[in-house]
Amino acid sequence: MISRFADLVKSLPRRSPANPFFLLRPPAAPRARAMSDLRAPEHQVAGHRASFNKLGPLVDGAGLLYKPLQAGDRGEQEAAFYEAFSSHPAIPRRIRDAFFPGFHGTRLLPTAARPGEPHPHLVLDDLLAGLEAPSVMDVKIGACTWPPASPEPYVAKCLAKDRGSTSVVLGFRVSGARVVGAGGAVWRPERPEIKALDTAGVRRVLRRYVSSVADEGADCALAPAVYGGEGGVLSQLRELKAWFEVQTLFHFYSASILLGYDANAVAAAGPGGGVRVKLVDFAHVVDGDGVIDHNFLGGLCSLIKFISDIVDETP
Amino acid sequence: MISRFADLVKSLPRRSPANPFFLLRPPAAPRARAMSDLRAPEHQVAGHRASFNKLGPLVDGAGLLYKPLQAGDRGEQEAAFYEAFSSHPAIPRRIRDAFFPGFHGTRLLPTAARPGEPHPHLVLDDLLAGLEAPSVMDVKIGACTWPPASPEPYVAKCLAKDRGSTSVVLGFRVSGARVVGAGGAVWRPERPEIKALDTAGVRRVLRRYVSSVADEGADCALAPAVYGGEGGVLSQLRELKAWFEVQTLFHFYSASILLGYDANAVAAAGPGGGVRVKLVDFAHVVDGDGVIDHNFLGGLCSLIKFISDIVDETP
Repeated sequence: MISRFADLVKSLPRRSPANPFFLLRPPAAPRARAMSDLRAPEHQVAGHRASFNKLGPLVDGAGLLYKPLQAGDRGEQEAAFYEAFSSHPAIPRRIRDAFFPGFHGTRLLPTAARPGEPHPHLVLDDLLAGLEAPSVMDVKIGACTWPPASPEPYVAKCLAKDRGSTSVVLGFRVSGARVVGAGGAVWRPERPEIKALDTAGVRRVLRRYVSSVADEGADCALAPAVYGGEGGVLSQLRELKAWFEVQTLFHFYSASILLGYDANAVAAAGPGGGVRVKLVDFAHVVDGDGVIDHNFLGGLCSLIKFISDIVDETP
Repeated sequence: MISRFADLVKSLPRRSPANPFFLLRPPAAPRARAMSDLRAPEHQVAGHRASFNKLGPLVDGAGLLYKPLQAGDRGEQEAAFYEAFSSHPAIPRRIRDAFFPGFHGTRLLPTAARPGEPHPHLVLDDLLAGLEAPSVMDVKIGACTWPPASPEPYVAKCLAKDRGSTSVVLGFRVSGARVVGAGGAVWRPERPEIKALDTAGVRRVLRRYVSSVADEGADCALAPAVYGGEGGVLSQLRELKAWFEVQTLFHFYSASILLGYDANAVAAAGPGGGVRVKLVDFAHVVDGDGVIDHNFLGGLCSLIKFISDIVDETP
């Protein structure tokens, strides 16, 4: 077994047209009935979206999501992370199953953008599968989104974004949201609105995420069911925090926590029913080298405090 | 009451020769029998040292330390912090008493450096008073040592130091140490050695801090008594952590945790005997504005993990 993640990445043959599957495990068998069943997910809230001439994630409607490998080394880094993480004996099974998308290898898929040049995709569990009316939020965790050994221009670019957003001040930033309110009305802020969020704005979005009203008001009616109670967001985040207090295997720079719940079902299912808390986006994960991920942990604790304040304020 | 720390700082009259006591409370009565009793502390491990022509902290041998106000706004900032903190009704008394130096106002003292121009000093508890053979370590907490609203040159200077030291990687850096080993032999690394510490070096210093041997070896013989047990460093740091998980009043940029114990007494007193864990250096503290200090908290959790690893490894 290759114990250090960096060594695993180094050991991988470089991707090339002749060698598109650079990973150790065989690609997953497709579950989609046909390639034509693949479609851009309706409920994506952050990252590149698939369109006629752009690569983006695709879902098969049968529980899988296909995420195109990113350009540069990022695609390989993310694939190598999933490979290392999914087989690492020191990751508690409960942590892997509860907080990370299931990984099913990689798969070459034809793309509309470049006919005749299939592109490698990560095959992952579709985290929103089975939710009838998904309310989703993507929260990028950490005051610092650049791994310490990054090249200078990348550090400068990330630092400007971290200082220009709430990352430095709050230890996290909201990267996207989609909230299903009363009568199925959907609120989905555009990227400029998301990027302009300050501390008060983040607090508003976190309240609106658990509100049943469709307008700008926030009644936080779903806070007890979604954020509170057994199996709710808070209890899941606290379980994740306990792991981050001791895990020294990986540092999750620029990763996000994806929150999801079914707006239709959550009231019926009661506290915690159907609430999902998952880590996503691992293109900048690096070796922990025996040190805890204090950057992720600090941001996670800050997010927990914001959410617990909302639960405490809700009768 | 002025509730926001920033408002308190703004409300203070500027310091001037005509108005050297800008604080709200009257200066403390001197406890030293005479000014000539004041001397530079023997056991200082970080910061400027007092000498014939340099300002530095002085102790009176009766339990008080006089810290000269720093240049620029820093001195006022630190004094304003002590003023705000020592009277803030939302600070639990146990936290203030256990983890912060007692504050006794400010006092003008003549200085050798500038005869005829007395300089204002903070009057604080001498944290090492009563220790016969003090082993001391200063650990600057936080991956980021610059408050978000700092001017660009200051950000650039701090960021270079944070990246050049272990701060970014570990969430803390050792700023100084003094360890009394067998037979009273003192190990006190010079600043260049301290500044060059990498992750492995920090681990070595943390082990050596609780070792009874005088040479470079580290037997960690005192780890159970100093780091472990009831009242030991770990249990105190965990109590501090619990407060940082909820406190949103102050962000402690560039503050340090000072560890101290009496090498002569610690074996006799048993686990936790005489072990001190205090926060110091508050020139860059800013308002928390309702957000936890995720930067300090993350670094604190990282330090806790390093120390708990040493306790776990010690039989």
